[in-house]
Amino acid sequence: MHPGLSIDCVIFGFHESELKVLLLKLKNQKLWSLPGGFVDRQKAVDSEAVEVLFRRTGLRDIFLRQFYLFGDTDRHLPGHANKLVATDVIPPELENWFDQRFVSVGYYALVEYSKVQAPRPDFSSDSCTWKNMKDLPDLMLDHEKIIQKAYQILKRELNDQPIGLNLLPDEFSMSELQALYETVLDRKLDRRNFRRKMLSYDILEDTGKRRTGGAHKSPRLYRFNEEKYHKAIEDGLRSLW
Amino acid sequence: MHPGLSIDCVIFGFHESELKVLLLKLKNQKLWSLPGGFVDRQKAVDSEAVEVLFRRTGLRDIFLRQFYLFGDTDRHLPGHANKLVATDVIPPELENWFDQRFVSVGYYALVEYSKVQAPRPDFSSDSCTWKNMKDLPDLMLDHEKIIQKAYQILKRELNDQPIGLNLLPDEFSMSELQALYETVLDRKLDRRNFRRKMLSYDILEDTGKRRTGGAHKSPRLYRFNEEKYHKAIEDGLRSLW
Repeated sequence: MHPGLSIDCVIFGFHESELKVLLLKLKNQKLWSLPGGFVDRQKAVDSEAVEVLFRRTGLRDIFLRQFYLFGDTDRHLPGHANKLVATDVIPPELENWFDQRFVSVGYYALVEYSKVQAPRPDFSSDSCTWKNMKDLPDLMLDHEKIIQKAYQILKRELNDQPIGLNLLPDEFSMSELQALYETVLDRKLDRRNFRRKMLSYDILEDTGKRRTGGAHKSPRLYRFNEEKYHKAIEDGLRSLW
Repeated sequence: MHPGLSIDCVIFGFHESELKVLLLKLKNQKLWSLPGGFVDRQKAVDSEAVEVLFRRTGLRDIFLRQFYLFGDTDRHLPGHANKLVATDVIPPELENWFDQRFVSVGYYALVEYSKVQAPRPDFSSDSCTWKNMKDLPDLMLDHEKIIQKAYQILKRELNDQPIGLNLLPDEFSMSELQALYETVLDRKLDRRNFRRKMLSYDILEDTGKRRTGGAHKSPRLYRFNEEKYHKAIEDGLRSLW
């Protein structure tokens, strides 16, 4: 195990205009925690993040982005390991690991949570659940700070990166796409401005179809041009300069 | 010393329309390297980065941004430590540290290099020099990759963050500011577009003065409104949505 280095994953879940985050409740603990874990000495840190998420939650095939190394000195609490060992959450041989100072690399992802397989807790946890971002439970160590930092970066990346693929149905209306942005940004956006900017990035295709059957005027349906979408992730949505 | 964790600093230097990067040449080594070092177990990683930069180069008061943890497995070269010990670059007691796999947190900064104190190499290095980004020498380990990643992030941040304070004189013309952007982005920009966008961010103040004495039409001089400039760094240059 790589000494003094852990991984924490902030998995944001979007579903029906709500933004949630995936949390674990360790056995016999009062506080909730992010799915996290250790780094095998022989493995790349980025690929270990995918492994850690799978081991702790059962989630597979999630594209994780590294966002920050949390390396403050006050994030280590003396006695933290004792408590985890005492309640059988970690085996005694890991107590030493926890008793030294450790730093943690944060990874985040945004998923449509009804489309990923249902998360399942690992042996050390009682539950693994989506919790509303607006009503987070009490969290251990600096996990609340890690979540807020990830959320700040997620919001800023909307200025430079497209989102929506794998979060929306294959064909979607402009107002469904706008609802996704409004959920992540947690504020209302101007309909005409949103439409104009989104079309200017040239990542959408008009399917030629309209959704019918609703109470409102039947809206036009779009899909992402996946090639242009992925190119925009590589190059940025547009260059300002 | 925190085990298995090092720090590498990518210091970009801007001066007279050239972009450079600060490199060290270790004693008796053929390859150049980034200024880097270790993390004291009792110290926050972010503050250790400032210390490391000072110890290796003599540079002080540089605002460093953390940008990535380099954690691939192939970045560790067996024999690397032997070579450094053999040529007196590191003391023998550090050989063990290097013989284990280590990961490195990258930090970067952009400075006007004629305005910071002249860099001076530490005991382990023969020289500490600004090298042109367009003509980098051969570098040890994955340091070339670290520089390219930092450069990619620096360029993308221009879409969201102001630059120029501490890089330009207190009062500057629009074309001097544009030259800074062109140097970092390594391409020409449209003069009218640049001016229009820059003014729209409301971070510049017209000094009411003009530079006189040049061969060309005397240009208007601007300064940054520091309060608005720092607010833009906090909040992003503008929200797209």
